Amino acid sequence: MLELYHAEPASNSLKVLLCLKEKGIDFVSHLVNIQAFEQHEPQFLKINPDGQVPVLVHDGTVITESTVINEYLDQIFPSPPLRPADPLECARMRLFTKYVDEYFRPALSQIGWQLMIHTITDKLSREEFAAKLARIPREEKREKWRIAAAQGYTAEQMAAWRRTLAEGIGKMEAALAKGPWLAGPHYSLADIACFAMAAHMPGRFGDILNETVSPRVMDWHRRVRARPAVAAALAMPSPMQAAARKHGPAS
Amino acid sequence: MLELYHAEPASNSLKVLLCLKEKGIDFVSHLVNIQAFEQHEPQFLKINPDGQVPVLVHDGTVITESTVINEYLDQIFPSPPLRPADPLECARMRLFTKYVDEYFRPALSQIGWQLMIHTITDKLSREEFAAKLARIPREEKREKWRIAAAQGYTAEQMAAWRRTLAEGIGKMEAALAKGPWLAGPHYSLADIACFAMAAHMPGRFGDILNETVSPRVMDWHRRVRARPAVAAALAMPSPMQAAARKHGPAS
Repeated sequence: MLELYHAEPASNSLKVLLCLKEKGIDFVSHLVNIQAFEQHEPQFLKINPDGQVPVLVHDGTVITESTVINEYLDQIFPSPPLRPADPLECARMRLFTKYVDEYFRPALSQIGWQLMIHTITDKLSREEFAAKLARIPREEKREKWRIAAAQGYTAEQMAAWRRTLAEGIGKMEAALAKGPWLAGPHYSLADIACFAMAAHMPGRFGDILNETVSPRVMDWHRRVRARPAVAAALAMPSPMQAAARKHGPAS
Repeated sequence: MLELYHAEPASNSLKVLLCLKEKGIDFVSHLVNIQAFEQHEPQFLKINPDGQVPVLVHDGTVITESTVINEYLDQIFPSPPLRPADPLECARMRLFTKYVDEYFRPALSQIGWQLMIHTITDKLSREEFAAKLARIPREEKREKWRIAAAQGYTAEQMAAWRRTLAEGIGKMEAALAKGPWLAGPHYSLADIACFAMAAHMPGRFGDILNETVSPRVMDWHRRVRARPAVAAALAMPSPMQAAARKHGPAS
């Protein structure tokens, strides 16, 4: 039996959902409300002491880290293959999944935190937020949340992260000049990793991702979205977006 | 034909050398003097625009990133296998190689920079160093070098990175309680990635890595060192260490 603990269909949670749906694998979905800090609750820390989603549980064995989970899923459910058989294409795939993990996703995540943290923390007293913070297992994450909530990041930091996003989109644009998908002729975990991050970027980051600067990425984005598995993953429950619609944009 | 552009046998360069030697693969070695910033010279940037070693060139095709290179080498030269056939063990392997890339190696690298940057920069005028800095392609690296050379990192930052190293050694100790090697019964790319970082840690980081705190890691370290392939990799030219021996410890 496969179980997935995940947040709404965005970022690293979307990454694994896209892989599961592409392969048509049945799984039990456990939605974790990361806006309510459920991933740091004691019962969740028993599953993943790092306090992070997504987490795959396969017949009782826990596997963490979305990139590792997707490689694992492709190994045990090889059809359709999402890792290119050709070693060079496979290396290109891993350069993208690694780049997403080390540069693109952290930049997107820091910007996202800065923009939305107060919609979360404003509902909490100072003491409640301090208690939530204290439960975050990883020191780097604790520090990231603390700074975002307290003074916020500097304009210089935000600009640097936006340059990283532009760099990443540039890498995608260059790769798509060579083939229809990021690693070459086949849709792969590279497309999945990048789309999981870029899914909601058009519009929100219109200066970085648009028809003039990155026409191939825009076309790729439409082709990825058109895949039935992608539509199914994006249709998974999204409590944060529902709440945002209900309460309107933060003033 | 395989060519490897690499620095002395330490860190990410050692990681790929360990893999090549374990498999007994012939390759042309190009030693890049990173203490002389050769990885940022225009002729090297033509090979890897990121200005980083190691770089594998296979029949003219460039592959970057040591973790990606080692997976590639294991795919094209499958004997002896360095990725476990068992999917769960393979996932454990990747959790280690990823952890090394994202946490352990950056922590070790920042500490290393702080300790040794002045042995490099003191030989340069302020203008020469500024010119070297300006050529570093990746903004994050440029900033890391600039801060280390200028004011240095804070005691708080250095302490946080030492805690990360202790956390990493703790993860290795826990894994080695379950099997002889980090991913289970087989020597794998996980052992290679961790040893590439920990090779020179006993003694230098005696408070973090010792017989009391991490006896299994110490035993593992001896078992890894005893492998002929590891001895061969560590015996590769090491200009920096030779220079340190010649000039004595920094005053």
